[in-house]
Amino acid sequence: MAHWQAIAPAAAQEVEHPSSLVVEFGPDRPLALDCGASLSPFTIAYQTYGELDAQRSNAVLICHALTGDQHVANVHPVTGKPGWWETMIGPGKPIDTDRFFVICANVVGGCMGTTGPASRGPDQVKPWALDFPVVTIRDMVRAQAMLIDHLGIDTLFCVAGGSMGGMQVLQWAASYPERVFSAMPIATAARHSAQNIAFHEVGRQAIMADPDWKGGHYLLEGARPEKGLAVARMAAHITYLSEPALHRKFGRKLQERDAPTFSFDADFEIESYLRYQGRSFVERFDANSYLYLTRAMDYFDLAADYDGVLARAFGKTRTRFCMVSFTSDWLFPTADTRAIVHALNASGASVSFVEIETDKGHDAFLLDVPELFATSRGFIDSAAHARGLPPAREA
Amino acid sequence: MAHWQAIAPAAAQEVEHPSSLVVEFGPDRPLALDCGASLSPFTIAYQTYGELDAQRSNAVLICHALTGDQHVANVHPVTGKPGWWETMIGPGKPIDTDRFFVICANVVGGCMGTTGPASRGPDQVKPWALDFPVVTIRDMVRAQAMLIDHLGIDTLFCVAGGSMGGMQVLQWAASYPERVFSAMPIATAARHSAQNIAFHEVGRQAIMADPDWKGGHYLLEGARPEKGLAVARMAAHITYLSEPALHRKFGRKLQERDAPTFSFDADFEIESYLRYQGRSFVERFDANSYLYLTRAMDYFDLAADYDGVLARAFGKTRTRFCMVSFTSDWLFPTADTRAIVHALNASGASVSFVEIETDKGHDAFLLDVPELFATSRGFIDSAAHARGLPPAREA
Repeated sequence: MAHWQAIAPAAAQEVEHPSSLVVEFGPDRPLALDCGASLSPFTIAYQTYGELDAQRSNAVLICHALTGDQHVANVHPVTGKPGWWETMIGPGKPIDTDRFFVICANVVGGCMGTTGPASRGPDQVKPWALDFPVVTIRDMVRAQAMLIDHLGIDTLFCVAGGSMGGMQVLQWAASYPERVFSAMPIATAARHSAQNIAFHEVGRQAIMADPDWKGGHYLLEGARPEKGLAVARMAAHITYLSEPALHRKFGRKLQERDAPTFSFDADFEIESYLRYQGRSFVERFDANSYLYLTRAMDYFDLAADYDGVLARAFGKTRTRFCMVSFTSDWLFPTADTRAIVHALNASGASVSFVEIETDKGHDAFLLDVPELFATSRGFIDSAAHARGLPPAREA
Repeated sequence: MAHWQAIAPAAAQEVEHPSSLVVEFGPDRPLALDCGASLSPFTIAYQTYGELDAQRSNAVLICHALTGDQHVANVHPVTGKPGWWETMIGPGKPIDTDRFFVICANVVGGCMGTTGPASRGPDQVKPWALDFPVVTIRDMVRAQAMLIDHLGIDTLFCVAGGSMGGMQVLQWAASYPERVFSAMPIATAARHSAQNIAFHEVGRQAIMADPDWKGGHYLLEGARPEKGLAVARMAAHITYLSEPALHRKFGRKLQERDAPTFSFDADFEIESYLRYQGRSFVERFDANSYLYLTRAMDYFDLAADYDGVLARAFGKTRTRFCMVSFTSDWLFPTADTRAIVHALNASGASVSFVEIETDKGHDAFLLDVPELFATSRGFIDSAAHARGLPPAREA
């Protein structure tokens, strides 16, 4: 047995034991990557919920965000917490698992069972580390299409996701228009902004500055760049919230004391909250995966593949779109969504667009935002009707 | 000679050789600190420009921001770059050194000659490091008042500064209302927001995560937490700019190439720009000073000393205020300035308030923004007239 297994962190162990369904693609089914390399063999770890109907017409693919994974609607095997989108997906929920067959796969480059930098590399012993090829959002979607083929599904009833998940939804609609009946990209953009690239670069530099990163070979060397990854997460986490939400939740409240300590302890509640976010993240996420997935988002520029004209990405699409943004999301502001809506309009697509008023920031797509659920339910029900799917059961 | 000197970085050397005027306060003149400790002996390093008039009535105190120093209008002795506010201060400039005696002092806790954590500690051999007491904005202002006393100046014609400098201006007006004839706090706030505390905490965690920080004792151990400090600077630097400015300057432009490298090299111009910002910062700044000065900003809450009522901080002030904010400053947004203006109005102060339209973000106060210069010139000239100072010479 290889040495690195004994010293692998939770994330790498998950690559070996994903607590999920897996599909292995052998040498006969390589994944062609945008960088020119191909990945073979490779594994996709995924979860499903509900049942595929006889016509194979009720499948919904959920695409996860940067630090999400396939455990969208079940207790997470590492953290023990509820699935990351149980507010949206489940029996009777807007994406109703009594009606739909819901699939969620860990992305290529991830660390929860799908092949990524913590997976065994070409020698089948050592982890890939930085020899793993740089992947793109389109690569992630190409891998998902192979999974959908494997499941015998021709057309997805819906593809939905927020943030990096939304990028995948847009890429699905562009790459496989005939396979996407409806699409719900939430709090996302057709390309990553300079400011967002900048924040990602800070996170990557924080990880690579940690001597325990060891040039990417930390798994082999029995280390983990926990401090660097925690700093990366802390910086990113601020961008997922909004100033009003932070002010409402934390303000300048001191922790369990009346006066400042005049020290570098976590005097303010926001400080201990951020430190907790950093600490808990490193328990479930692989640092190299963080490098690869942030890079994939930075590279995302859907129009670039179509001579810089975003509308061309959607050609003569017949997909029905529902675009959602949030007023206080400064990471993927409404202007980014509006640019997509304009492109969809220019290509004659069916698109509805809702900007939801909330102070919850970018993370609103994961939180209890009734208007998001109502919007999603309405869109899904209407698309299901158009698709000829049976209506929701009476409650 | 103590061992640590031989291995001290530029910043610590500057503490020993500040290339500035210095005043040393001996055991008979301790600096009483908000934390309860007192600092004695201690040194203030400062620069002056222009000449003090016979009535000692034309002195302008400039308060520097987090990473600024006393070299406001002369070539910086470490970087060789122009002074940080030469656009504003100099012969014929809005703060005209042909008319005014301009003083700028390195703050207590800084690293350019004023006593701070890199200075020799109580044993006069080892640097203070984390034994240096945590200082506040009010402590900085108290030390500046001792410098002003030392210079024989009773009333300052004007106190001006942006960001952390603006906090000091507000504190001056609150602590010594009779000594401040006019005040120009720019791009600042009466208290640091939860989001700003959060960004500072990320920076501090990045520094403290660097093993070369060595629990704060890096100077003694011949190390420097350069990587951690660079990450802190990179994260902070994003907050000094604005998304539109980043987009205009960098967009998604690739560095000297046509296609992405599919690697973690600095593909995008914004990445190499940020890395450069990080690298160049560590050459001139002490990591522990960064911890102390960010902490001072976090603790700043002017109203807290006045039962939470900001207007009381300004009592029956007769200081003339000019408040300036910038539309694209999301670190110290206009709402923060407006809160101060309301408090000043409530206390019957003379206050003018200008929100300047610019996409340059928080850093606008340091940049070429003609409306800022025009506003400053108008305010200064009018205040000088009210003070009975002679008008500007004909050009």
